[in-house]
Amino acid sequence: MTDWMDFLNTHQNRFESELLDFVRIPSVSASSEYSQDVENAAAWVSKKLKEVGVENVLTMPTGGHPVVYGDWLHAGKSKPTILIYGHFDVQPAEPFNLWDTPPFEPEIRDGKVYGRGASDDKGGMLIPILSFEALIKTTEKLPVNVKFLFEGQEEIGSPQLPKFMAEHRNKFACDMIFSSDGLQWTEDEPNIVMGLKGLLGVEIKVTGPKGDQHSGLHGGAIANPLMALSQLVSSMKSQNGKILIEGFYDDVAELTEEDRAEISKVPYDEDEYINELGVPELFGEIGFSTRERLWARPTLDVNGIWGGYQGLGSKTVHPSEASVKITCRLVANQKPEKIFNLIKQHVENNTPTGTRSTVEKLAGDADPFLMPKSHNASKVVKDILADVYGKEPYETRLGGSIPIMTIMLNELGVHGTMFGFSLGDENLHAPNEFFRLKNFKRGQIAYCKLFESLGLA
Amino acid sequence: MTDWMDFLNTHQNRFESELLDFVRIPSVSASSEYSQDVENAAAWVSKKLKEVGVENVLTMPTGGHPVVYGDWLHAGKSKPTILIYGHFDVQPAEPFNLWDTPPFEPEIRDGKVYGRGASDDKGGMLIPILSFEALIKTTEKLPVNVKFLFEGQEEIGSPQLPKFMAEHRNKFACDMIFSSDGLQWTEDEPNIVMGLKGLLGVEIKVTGPKGDQHSGLHGGAIANPLMALSQLVSSMKSQNGKILIEGFYDDVAELTEEDRAEISKVPYDEDEYINELGVPELFGEIGFSTRERLWARPTLDVNGIWGGYQGLGSKTVHPSEASVKITCRLVANQKPEKIFNLIKQHVENNTPTGTRSTVEKLAGDADPFLMPKSHNASKVVKDILADVYGKEPYETRLGGSIPIMTIMLNELGVHGTMFGFSLGDENLHAPNEFFRLKNFKRGQIAYCKLFESLGLA
Repeated sequence: MTDWMDFLNTHQNRFESELLDFVRIPSVSASSEYSQDVENAAAWVSKKLKEVGVENVLTMPTGGHPVVYGDWLHAGKSKPTILIYGHFDVQPAEPFNLWDTPPFEPEIRDGKVYGRGASDDKGGMLIPILSFEALIKTTEKLPVNVKFLFEGQEEIGSPQLPKFMAEHRNKFACDMIFSSDGLQWTEDEPNIVMGLKGLLGVEIKVTGPKGDQHSGLHGGAIANPLMALSQLVSSMKSQNGKILIEGFYDDVAELTEEDRAEISKVPYDEDEYINELGVPELFGEIGFSTRERLWARPTLDVNGIWGGYQGLGSKTVHPSEASVKITCRLVANQKPEKIFNLIKQHVENNTPTGTRSTVEKLAGDADPFLMPKSHNASKVVKDILADVYGKEPYETRLGGSIPIMTIMLNELGVHGTMFGFSLGDENLHAPNEFFRLKNFKRGQIAYCKLFESLGLA
Repeated sequence: MTDWMDFLNTHQNRFESELLDFVRIPSVSASSEYSQDVENAAAWVSKKLKEVGVENVLTMPTGGHPVVYGDWLHAGKSKPTILIYGHFDVQPAEPFNLWDTPPFEPEIRDGKVYGRGASDDKGGMLIPILSFEALIKTTEKLPVNVKFLFEGQEEIGSPQLPKFMAEHRNKFACDMIFSSDGLQWTEDEPNIVMGLKGLLGVEIKVTGPKGDQHSGLHGGAIANPLMALSQLVSSMKSQNGKILIEGFYDDVAELTEEDRAEISKVPYDEDEYINELGVPELFGEIGFSTRERLWARPTLDVNGIWGGYQGLGSKTVHPSEASVKITCRLVANQKPEKIFNLIKQHVENNTPTGTRSTVEKLAGDADPFLMPKSHNASKVVKDILADVYGKEPYETRLGGSIPIMTIMLNELGVHGTMFGFSLGDENLHAPNEFFRLKNFKRGQIAYCKLFESLGLA
């Protein structure tokens, strides 16, 4: 047994107790009521980093919730510098009455820590700190140079982070990034995330007459903005799920045979999925499997539509205007700005006779994220996962966007590797969130192996 | 000068004073706060009918606001029995602050009575009563048998009238119907309404997954109910304004050359209309003029549409359901029930893959109304209008529906003729409603001539 493994075994009870302490801090970033608790969580992290020997620990202001930084850079210039990411803020815990035990009074039952943030991401972000501790306490050094970046605003979309990262590029400069905020596939099956989607939101408004009109007096004479909007929205997608905006697919990185093979390896029960969502059948872009569409093809979804009378019964109004909100999930190598311009052009070209339209870009766009084929950090992580689980990891992608991953890519020029040990069934944003202690320890082992492995390179 | 003309001249000041008394009663049918005032207006009408010699005067319960009935049936069996319709309820007067003088404290300025209901329909319904008075006081008899039907719920859509009329068919049986609730074209140009549109309202709901979903996690895999609803709505109308529901036009009474000639005689300034509505251009069913579309072609208008997120900014939700309200204005000889079934069939046939839909018929449908070509009462009215105005009346139609006209047609089997003397510019449902005293008297003369003319037939 290695020294660090011995250390992990010896101190596991203390580590669990530290996790409980950490979860006790109600660091809900979404509510100003908990601002001081987010600060307290930052202070807790800062203290813990100092205790284990991380140097230059700083709580850095962002204009919102703070960032905690720390480093240990004594492995030598020939060794890589890695940046480890995590977040100490948590989702709101409401509704409290659905929790079996209070969200901020964590307890261990059946090998699981129950409490808000136990899995997302307090358990996750504590793991690399504990691995750091195990190595430095047993070998007095780390095999690699390490920087830590822990934020307190992930659950509200990291609004201050783009500016903050741009201002501190040098401080966070690194060769590789590992995010502790990630998922494995099941208890026995590892997983590595190879891609995330980007995001673009637009709001389109179609206007007709200057005010609402009487549908009997004017209905046959003028275009109806609600019908016009329906025609406009409908013009964006074919009946077989293809997006019809000219040029929309031009920059899409096409799936290779290898990509498709990797995706098809991941277990998937279509009937169960249909049942879970309660839909009559699945539907999407023709020519691709459901998983391919979810993970690797861009989408165009209507998020909201409104106009005219929405109350009970009938009102014979010919409304003045109608609006729609649309978001596109983008894939490499689409750019939100270019897609916005294509949509704008499409709306201009397809606005029905007798109406006017406007298109507005909504805040919160994100670039897509796709791991390059020969990405060193991912290869190392794959090997470690195979070692720890005794099984090759699946290569998956996510249909959602994780702003921090694209922020780090944009500002530091590094594709981060998600290397976290939570599972999707751990009620991450729901009551009774929990984290498996088995994975808490498995993660510590995995991060020790990661440090070692990177030190050999 | 005839005796009745002399009588009208002599008593005009008293008539005007009676109209002011009538307008002082705030008989707003829409608000329960004014229920007693609607009753008071019924009592006022009842008293007035008795005073002028109308017999069998009754205030009849309807389950809502009452009906006032009266008759005079001594002209003999060889003479026709005519039914005269009007309403003593008025629109709400809010916003009060936009009135130059209080709505229920009427006053005469520049030959106009200002006050809520002066034009719609208190001035209008008083006219035939005063003509009755003039004839009976000067000749001791009427040339025709007369029944009066005055209601107190026209401004809220006559909800109790269909049942009430069905229960009292015999009491209201007649040969001809004249409605005092009607408009002339301008101060110098008369008008006779030849058609009204019918109405059918539906609500369609499209559902997808059982709850709102994350657009990133499921957006590419399942149909979006808002996109599906847009496609469904869009499938109902072509880009050139044709309604695409199979069989929709099957029963439409086509416009004859004569109809089109009559419609084209009515003055119409397209630029002014565009400017009034503030639309970039007019739009409607190809192959018909704007007026033809407004008056004699069926329409399909979206009154309201909603689903998903309608707030500020972006929300990446994949909504569970979306709804739309649609009304069709129908023309002779379309039937609301049949059109409803066609729409239902269309929705069933066109519901996009991956979604479910429901179609509900909304309350308040109405049959269309079109005067038969050889309609005696209308011919008489046309001659009288030509006589009184020195100009042939325009033959117009209305794009709206007037429930009482179709109720009377259905229950009594008689097409009513609209014979009223208000003008469209008199702020009928707006602040500062007024009625021209010139037309108040012109109407009295016209109704005296109508009675005389029908007595000759």
